[in-house]
Amino acid sequence: MSDIQGWGQGEDDDLLFADEDAPDPSSANSGTVAAPWKLLIVDDDPEVHAITRVVLNDVSFDGRRLQFLSAHSGGEARAILNDHPDIAAVLLDVVMETEDAGLRLVHHIREVLGNRRVRIILRTGQPGQAPERQVIVSYDINDYKAKSELTAQKLFTTTVAALRSYQHIDAIERNRQGLETIVDAAGTLFEQRSMDRFALGVVERVAALLPRATGAFLCAVPPGPNPEDSNPEDSNPEGPGPGGRFREAVVLCGTGVFAEATGRPVGAVLPEAACADIAAALARGRSLHRDDHSVALFQTQSPGPGALFIGGHGGLPEVERRLLEIFCSRMSVGFDNVSLYEQLRLAQIATVHALGKLAEYKDEVTGEHVRRIGRWATAIARELQARGTCGGDADDRFCELIGLASMLHDVGKVAIPDQILRKPGKLDPEEITQMREHATIGGRILRDASGPVGGRSYLSMGAEIAESHHEKFDGTGYPQGLAGEAIPLSGRIVAVADVYDALLHRRPYKEAWELAAVVDLIRAESGRHFDPRVVDAFVAVLERGGPEA
Amino acid sequence: MSDIQGWGQGEDDDLLFADEDAPDPSSANSGTVAAPWKLLIVDDDPEVHAITRVVLNDVSFDGRRLQFLSAHSGGEARAILNDHPDIAAVLLDVVMETEDAGLRLVHHIREVLGNRRVRIILRTGQPGQAPERQVIVSYDINDYKAKSELTAQKLFTTTVAALRSYQHIDAIERNRQGLETIVDAAGTLFEQRSMDRFALGVVERVAALLPRATGAFLCAVPPGPNPEDSNPEDSNPEGPGPGGRFREAVVLCGTGVFAEATGRPVGAVLPEAACADIAAALARGRSLHRDDHSVALFQTQSPGPGALFIGGHGGLPEVERRLLEIFCSRMSVGFDNVSLYEQLRLAQIATVHALGKLAEYKDEVTGEHVRRIGRWATAIARELQARGTCGGDADDRFCELIGLASMLHDVGKVAIPDQILRKPGKLDPEEITQMREHATIGGRILRDASGPVGGRSYLSMGAEIAESHHEKFDGTGYPQGLAGEAIPLSGRIVAVADVYDALLHRRPYKEAWELAAVVDLIRAESGRHFDPRVVDAFVAVLERGGPEA
Repeated sequence: MSDIQGWGQGEDDDLLFADEDAPDPSSANSGTVAAPWKLLIVDDDPEVHAITRVVLNDVSFDGRRLQFLSAHSGGEARAILNDHPDIAAVLLDVVMETEDAGLRLVHHIREVLGNRRVRIILRTGQPGQAPERQVIVSYDINDYKAKSELTAQKLFTTTVAALRSYQHIDAIERNRQGLETIVDAAGTLFEQRSMDRFALGVVERVAALLPRATGAFLCAVPPGPNPEDSNPEDSNPEGPGPGGRFREAVVLCGTGVFAEATGRPVGAVLPEAACADIAAALARGRSLHRDDHSVALFQTQSPGPGALFIGGHGGLPEVERRLLEIFCSRMSVGFDNVSLYEQLRLAQIATVHALGKLAEYKDEVTGEHVRRIGRWATAIARELQARGTCGGDADDRFCELIGLASMLHDVGKVAIPDQILRKPGKLDPEEITQMREHATIGGRILRDASGPVGGRSYLSMGAEIAESHHEKFDGTGYPQGLAGEAIPLSGRIVAVADVYDALLHRRPYKEAWELAAVVDLIRAESGRHFDPRVVDAFVAVLERGGPEA
Repeated sequence: MSDIQGWGQGEDDDLLFADEDAPDPSSANSGTVAAPWKLLIVDDDPEVHAITRVVLNDVSFDGRRLQFLSAHSGGEARAILNDHPDIAAVLLDVVMETEDAGLRLVHHIREVLGNRRVRIILRTGQPGQAPERQVIVSYDINDYKAKSELTAQKLFTTTVAALRSYQHIDAIERNRQGLETIVDAAGTLFEQRSMDRFALGVVERVAALLPRATGAFLCAVPPGPNPEDSNPEDSNPEGPGPGGRFREAVVLCGTGVFAEATGRPVGAVLPEAACADIAAALARGRSLHRDDHSVALFQTQSPGPGALFIGGHGGLPEVERRLLEIFCSRMSVGFDNVSLYEQLRLAQIATVHALGKLAEYKDEVTGEHVRRIGRWATAIARELQARGTCGGDADDRFCELIGLASMLHDVGKVAIPDQILRKPGKLDPEEITQMREHATIGGRILRDASGPVGGRSYLSMGAEIAESHHEKFDGTGYPQGLAGEAIPLSGRIVAVADVYDALLHRRPYKEAWELAAVVDLIRAESGRHFDPRVVDAFVAVLERGGPEA
């Protein structure tokens, strides 16, 4: 069923479908609860190790027993502490290889390892070497015992108190770290404008939030009847059930063991019962947690990203479940923002395209000329940016804006009388003068429009292009007869793109030219009609197959 | 100088300008450090209180001394704990008004008050009533002492250990709470699309993050030379200095003592030296902290919101300074998002306006007709929504979209020959037929444009309006002769707005009508040309002075 390594092998039988009302059998954090507390005994006297183990052997706190680690010197203890950052408490002798080996270890733990969670109980046989009053104030320890006073009962009490403190601090610390991960995710992910990258970021961040998970993925909710219409109680892991539809759902992006799953159907990635869990979570409208995996949901206003599947976590404690909920609720806002932004961008492109095309409505219905100009202008601009031949003029913002701006190059034509625009034959000098006004008029229309937007926008760049796309590099163009770099770069780019596209395609007044003839003409006009650097960039784009669609 | 209560009285002399390289004199958290640790002694034996105070009188931990609180029963202790949620440790007797009064208090503190930070040291005179092994496991306490074993030294040790634990837990907890505030702010604020509301939200959230502050405000960076060009070392609190320019900066929004400061110059709100601090923070490009106030900055891509001033906090400990940095860095992304959104919206409105106006370019240059239609259509739609007379048709999304969509009602005119559009006299039947095609053509142009956007957009609604704004309620309109609710609500609304505006203003082929005559005609056409509910809503908007500009 599943071919993702570490996933789904023989697990189908263990994953039974949860009854809606029955308690979730995996609610208890069995995975976490089973792990013992690690207690490090540091003492140069082997007998102390033996006695300590005997006395504390049957200690159990919050359902977890003790695992003893032993070090016989400060040096040995450092190595063990390095390998076990999750040691709960240290029972620490003072005098070992040196008279203050224990006290030095305290400093090492707190300052060098930066471990402020582990509880340190100092127990000394020679209180003279480490006077209690001075040591308790000067060292970051949590209890001080003279071995002489340390009865079995007292050792038991101080150990349990240490475990309790450790448990508490560890829980808040993990919570704090989880919140930091979320805050961090909110900071960097919310800069994303693309849904794909945002979604991948979300999956990567959930892996950072739940580090024990072996992988996570997002899947789109497949179209079909509302999952609430299907009754999870009727489901049968053997039959198609509600999980059936979700086997067809596609993985949008994944990490860890699911890193290669992107684009594949969920059914090829998860065992059937886990697919059913995704369906069940969506049907209930809330997260679902199992012993080994969880399904979390996003509450988005816009059509949502579907479900988040987290695998191989070995049981999520309450703290992490809550963090996961907070994470998903914050990320929901992010999905809505990216979706709104994409929606706005789509509408913007469509509107600008409609605006550019409107002026050509009379001789070209499809508006493909306008769209192609946008793509060519962008490709030439990016090529100039990569070559650096136009200095700072072709910056990122320039390349972003020129696609929309260039679509508007001919809007001024709307003011030209039909009998001139549609005239089949040659225009007389009076008509040519009138026709040429479209450049100035287009500039005025777009400059008026750009006013309230402020700054550098595709409307202000569109005005610049409308005004200057009939100027020629040698100064023989119109309306102003500008030459060289006095013509805005945007206008020099659109001049090439416009002539190229106009010649290559049929118009009411002319046939389509052959590509080779068009390119020959553009090359011949390099330095006359066109800026040579723009022609070079154009040829480079053409030679690699034209702009991307 | 300053007239905000609690701000600026006589403080000018205390606030000297910080030397860039000298250590900040307010770096030490003098405000916080001075506060003593609160220790609650709970015992029914007055002598225990007296001895405890004597023994612990000279305890000082991390530079802070002890403040003793005394309760002689569990009941009394509950009241004190209620009033002092910041008690660091409790020395707790077991047997008081009842044999288990102390143990009940433990349960009350942890479960009822939910206070898991306070350290509880149980000390009992009758260990038989509370067997150590059982109590330390069953109750959430942090140490257990029989009074008989509790020497002065042991009392000192357990108290210092308790204070250390409390300090640690309190710091992580405050950090955690601060992060939660930031996570929460990221969730709700990032849904904001308006800069004003986002900015106010940021100021409100910073108040939640730093609850001891008496107020906060955002101020815009005033235009002028780059603050880095001025040398803070040259500044003189008496002269104009770099603070001078910032006295003219305007408060964008404020909370607490600055709640009324919105719109006022910073110089009227803060003493001169604090203004200079804002200038200095901007010049250094990083936050600045004083004994009583802080200036934090946002690192935005877009022209930023300027500086955040936080007043009356009495000194920010390191944890809070760090939280403030995290907060500002996260909110910077939010400012960028809102700014990008506003920019997109402005460009969108300008483009749609240009598109709508283009079709009318031949007879109306300013495009004011198109803009007025947008405002009237929105106002009528909102009025219908408020009245509920059109059921679910006039929902929020409808009201949002109709402003832009209605501007596009006549785009189809671009395809109508000039000689018809510009004909001064009456059109003949053939010309009327051609003219009427603008409705169908406009619908097609906009439906084509709306395709790639998907869903309900102003382009799809624009198509609907273009097609239907010449239909009449009684079925005598064109192009389809639809009647009543078969005409889309958007088209019924624009029909009224278009006729109203066309009659009220001069056109090449007609003079402007008197308002009364226009309204009489619209009323007379209610139920014939127009939907009566739309006419009623129109009249209601007109009677309250028309749509907002």
